[in-house]
Amino acid sequence: MNRIGPNVFVPPMPVALVGAIVEGKPNFMTVGWVTRVNFKPPMMAVVLNKGHYTPKGIMEHGTFSICFPPIAMEELADYCGVVSGRSVDKSKLFDIFYGDTETAPMIMDCPLNIECRLAQTIDLPTNTIYIGEVVESYCKPGCLTDGVPDITKINPLLLTMPDNRYWSIGEMAGRAFKDGLNIKEKLHGK
Amino acid sequence: MNRIGPNVFVPPMPVALVGAIVEGKPNFMTVGWVTRVNFKPPMMAVVLNKGHYTPKGIMEHGTFSICFPPIAMEELADYCGVVSGRSVDKSKLFDIFYGDTETAPMIMDCPLNIECRLAQTIDLPTNTIYIGEVVESYCKPGCLTDGVPDITKINPLLLTMPDNRYWSIGEMAGRAFKDGLNIKEKLHGK
Repeated sequence: MNRIGPNVFVPPMPVALVGAIVEGKPNFMTVGWVTRVNFKPPMMAVVLNKGHYTPKGIMEHGTFSICFPPIAMEELADYCGVVSGRSVDKSKLFDIFYGDTETAPMIMDCPLNIECRLAQTIDLPTNTIYIGEVVESYCKPGCLTDGVPDITKINPLLLTMPDNRYWSIGEMAGRAFKDGLNIKEKLHGK
Repeated sequence: MNRIGPNVFVPPMPVALVGAIVEGKPNFMTVGWVTRVNFKPPMMAVVLNKGHYTPKGIMEHGTFSICFPPIAMEELADYCGVVSGRSVDKSKLFDIFYGDTETAPMIMDCPLNIECRLAQTIDLPTNTIYIGEVVESYCKPGCLTDGVPDITKINPLLLTMPDNRYWSIGEMAGRAFKDGLNIKEKLHGK
């Protein structure tokens, strides 16, 4: 095993546009550090560097959105990560809609949008974790199969660092909570 | 946009095996809720349901590992998610190695392993977030390109829920912090 230093995060991250109303205008920033953090009630976390513009809006309204852009939106999604809402108005870039909270801007062209109410913040040295309770999720009708979001239709954008490359999803590689049962049966019987 | 309810997490998650020494034995559990949470110093978070066996070991030794299995290990990785260390000894499933902390078991056959020292826990209703400072990362020599981990060689396992399907990484879809500059130039000049 090669030691490659502690500052590496290679596993592909789903790229999200985190939306909030900042100084009266919808704003979106590109974020790679996103995960689910609680099963019941459903909660999601987004991790933002302290220097960003978006936190101001999240704290003011207590709401934010997590919008997942498709591959087709790659250039625009990257643009939202290279310019700050402090100097550029991003409110006209997208066809925006709102859900129950009325203050979490979401994107019509994103196949999957998650609307959150801020539950907790966790302060770390250079970053802050924003934990939101999921109020509602929204999926484009064409991206559902049997009423469930279908990743092959959503076609999300993945990011690896530090090589800074975007990726699409590939082939199906198995069934979770199922394929391992073969080994279980072999080792422990039925 | 279709409302699909709040309890959905579709974006693909990199599947990890979280390792810890529990009751004197190395144990690994399959986890999909993993993200980086701090830039400097590098910190990672893994989110575990409260009922699990692994937290006991993380709390006892103050260390844990995040090991990313390749597609080739799909069945074994899934197995670690369907049986608990409480009833099954998983210490012989893998060729294990240790790093500086000496108590975070890692897996020789995983192309990427991250060794963490526990920094903080955050208690949520059904889950706990374990935040670790990254002590070191380890990559298989064959999975590096110019000294940097290469996702196309690592071939990690991705998971979507609630459809519970595993996926491989697909085609490269662009360059981060670069492709957006085209739009920046168009809108704001050089």
